[in-house]
Amino acid sequence: MAAPVLRRPVFEIGLKGYAYGVEAVRLARAADRIAGDLGVSIVFDPQAVDIAAVARATEHLLVFAQHLDPVAPGRGVGTMLAEAVREAGADGAMLNHSERPMAFGDIGRAIERAREVGLRTLVYADSPEQAAGVAMLGPDIVLAEPPELIATSRSTAAEMRGFVERAVELVGRVDPGIIVMCSAGVQTAEDVTAMMALGVGGTGSSSGILRAADPIARMTEMITAMHTAWAELHPGPAAVTPA
Amino acid sequence: MAAPVLRRPVFEIGLKGYAYGVEAVRLARAADRIAGDLGVSIVFDPQAVDIAAVARATEHLLVFAQHLDPVAPGRGVGTMLAEAVREAGADGAMLNHSERPMAFGDIGRAIERAREVGLRTLVYADSPEQAAGVAMLGPDIVLAEPPELIATSRSTAAEMRGFVERAVELVGRVDPGIIVMCSAGVQTAEDVTAMMALGVGGTGSSSGILRAADPIARMTEMITAMHTAWAELHPGPAAVTPA
Amino acid sequence: MAAPVLRRPVFEIGLKGYAYGVEAVRLARAADRIAGDLGVSIVFDPQAVDIAAVARATEHLLVFAQHLDPVAPGRGVGTMLAEAVREAGADGAMLNHSERPMAFGDIGRAIERAREVGLRTLVYADSPEQAAGVAMLGPDIVLAEPPELIATSRSTAAEMRGFVERAVELVGRVDPGIIVMCSAGVQTAEDVTAMMALGVGGTGSSSGILRAADPIARMTEMITAMHTAWAELHPGPAAVTPA
Amino acid sequence: MAAPVLRRPVFEIGLKGYAYGVEAVRLARAADRIAGDLGVSIVFDPQAVDIAAVARATEHLLVFAQHLDPVAPGRGVGTMLAEAVREAGADGAMLNHSERPMAFGDIGRAIERAREVGLRTLVYADSPEQAAGVAMLGPDIVLAEPPELIATSRSTAAEMRGFVERAVELVGRVDPGIIVMCSAGVQTAEDVTAMMALGVGGTGSSSGILRAADPIARMTEMITAMHTAWAELHPGPAAVTPA
Repeated sequence: MAAPVLRRPVFEIGLKGYAYGVEAVRLARAADRIAGDLGVSIVFDPQAVDIAAVARATEHLLVFAQHLDPVAPGRGVGTMLAEAVREAGADGAMLNHSERPMAFGDIGRAIERAREVGLRTLVYADSPEQAAGVAMLGPDIVLAEPPELIATSRSTAAEMRGFVERAVELVGRVDPGIIVMCSAGVQTAEDVTAMMALGVGGTGSSSGILRAADPIARMTEMITAMHTAWAELHPGPAAVTPA
Repeated sequence: MAAPVLRRPVFEIGLKGYAYGVEAVRLARAADRIAGDLGVSIVFDPQAVDIAAVARATEHLLVFAQHLDPVAPGRGVGTMLAEAVREAGADGAMLNHSERPMAFGDIGRAIERAREVGLRTLVYADSPEQAAGVAMLGPDIVLAEPPELIATSRSTAAEMRGFVERAVELVGRVDPGIIVMCSAGVQTAEDVTAMMALGVGGTGSSSGILRAADPIARMTEMITAMHTAWAELHPGPAAVTPA
Repeated sequence: MAAPVLRRPVFEIGLKGYAYGVEAVRLARAADRIAGDLGVSIVFDPQAVDIAAVARATEHLLVFAQHLDPVAPGRGVGTMLAEAVREAGADGAMLNHSERPMAFGDIGRAIERAREVGLRTLVYADSPEQAAGVAMLGPDIVLAEPPELIATSRSTAAEMRGFVERAVELVGRVDPGIIVMCSAGVQTAEDVTAMMALGVGGTGSSSGILRAADPIARMTEMITAMHTAWAELHPGPAAVTPA
Repeated sequence: MAAPVLRRPVFEIGLKGYAYGVEAVRLARAADRIAGDLGVSIVFDPQAVDIAAVARATEHLLVFAQHLDPVAPGRGVGTMLAEAVREAGADGAMLNHSERPMAFGDIGRAIERAREVGLRTLVYADSPEQAAGVAMLGPDIVLAEPPELIATSRSTAAEMRGFVERAVELVGRVDPGIIVMCSAGVQTAEDVTAMMALGVGGTGSSSGILRAADPIARMTEMITAMHTAWAELHPGPAAVTPA
């Protein structure tokens, strides 16, 4: 089966530990339909134990592990091994989320390991400067957000403007092929529209969706808003990011 | 389906990052047949992404996660959540392996989280004193071994005698219901026999099996040796450990 | 110079990062006078860079490093080496504070390293069971406190009763020579008196003293309250703890 | 007293845990004389407990802490607080050595904390790309070296050529004011000469000096070799790096 295409705009649904098992698969199927209908790239990152079930149940999602360790096959109890993650059906891995910070050297080695087995990488950064710093390591996506805004509902499009525009500019100077995302404070469709207007290549949500009364309705609204905003901001055809 | 029974003697097959995916399932099926044939408890700990497939493919194995984080549902990117691990079909979790050391407070909280969702726990310790220390936290199994001997092939039954006998004694004083295991330096059936003679409630192997020319033949020999040694050392019927 | 004697009751003044440099030395001199006047053991733990100055400026204080790494001389950039800490004039080291958690194996090895160079050890624990667990490793002092109560001002003598009594009992069963302390929620002289009544061998304070309008007045009141409470609870002569 | 000037070429003497106490001060005095005689910048990084004594005993050395934590005054047991390190007399701090790896976010925050109190920073990186990544965070010095070569005696000037030249180029593109150093495999005066020829702004040694039969003779030879090589490679006057 062909791997799902990664192209702007990208929406990330961060499951964290909010949903797992049959509930994770139910949400994945709903996200998969949206990805197919709208033709947008959706990064969906379940708990490690649910990667295989989510990958089997979906066709269009980019299934990402929530973490990857910079280890080779062999020793390494309790680590997430690139080869095992790939064989389970994942398309990529997230690295360095503020809830799972990584040593800088480990980020670089984990990106190398991901590349060796054909996994994409999304790397978190706390500041525009850090976003440019991790961009030097060659990931596919950099998701920049101030850690103090994660999982909050403070409306932040305004205060985020300087942060986001600087992240987009600094990462673009390093490599314009890297997709820059920001999802800090994004909880509703309105937040998505405001965030996209700042020039990012994607956005996403975790608690905004997972703690909504109807998560599937919420994700549908948010991803539709991203799709609409992108089409208005970029009237031409969407460009496929080189693998 | 009834959970597999945990009773002495116990054999642990530590997959680490040596085997994953279809190979992990193939080894699990073979171990499952041995567990069924001999009626011994086998702890089998695959990569996180393979827990669900291994649990589905087997009936008698105690499928253990290689790690568990002391977190509750919700936030916690890249963590192993007890509820998710349980729903994926695991019977327990390993904690504090020397390749994945945990803060002492986290070990205690992870044991509590495991207990809340019905997972067993096997906790590693580096010394007899540490074995007694973790026994205070109420795990099901303590696996004591000097870290410098893990994944080596030095024959160690002789030099291990003092270490193992002291671990068995100190843990027994804390709670005689806790199973004490040691697998340091255990690579062959002969090593298993020698180790069981030291009074442990179980043993196991990782590289001894996974790097053998024929891993299934090797695990069969080793587990058979454990079963035989146990029957000779304990002529009566095996006692079921209270859950 | 003879090392200060460690005997019950013990008061710990936790400087953390509240005071350093000349201010740390000023507080140390004041604490030193109290230790000399009342004949009580005071553990005083400054920032690493201030250990030498505090040790030179005082006579009766037990100067403790806030952390010690389980390393031997040689490699180990950025670690706290036992030999260096000892030569700088420290009498001991604190281990496993909830703001600096340590892997369980590292706690054991750090206690060994401390013992080899003649440093005392005070080990933190989050629960009565963990207190007994670290007691197995042979420290001089176990300081048990629920991490959620550190640096708070919630009056907790009442809710702490069960916690403290169980910690004293469990550690006493492992080794009655180990001093059990608790300082959670202790901010005033009244808190000290209430805590001592629960049977501990010592108590202490960090933010209660360091954020008081007059830290020296506050520490004098608290240590005097401990001295008075101890004399009332233990009418006979204070026993010297064997080194 | 005026702070020692930081200008190319820079030599780093990494004490790690090899020398401490009076021996650290003895080596520092010797290094101080060399720094004064030759007018070169020497970064000298003792154990935390020895910073104050080394700073008092020397005039020309840039005394660096081996680590700094990204914390503010207040809580933070066992951390290295910027204000305390500065008041003890340090001129700077090392960050992210492979023996003390830091999360990427923490490196950025530690550099900010250092800047706030007037400390310089030297950040380690494992690869040319990581060197450029940390350069984005604005340190004074980046020390790039492959971790597998640290503390070895393999002659590496040849195999290091590509690594070093790429690090110098990539960091220079980010900010030409940042000093790029490399000391991997540098054990003798000959190694120093060969390394300087690769275009670095400085080099250094730890085990090469500390495990030499006569450490002071060895450091004198190495620093003299650096001074000579620099003068030949850069016939004009040395430029002072802006603070």
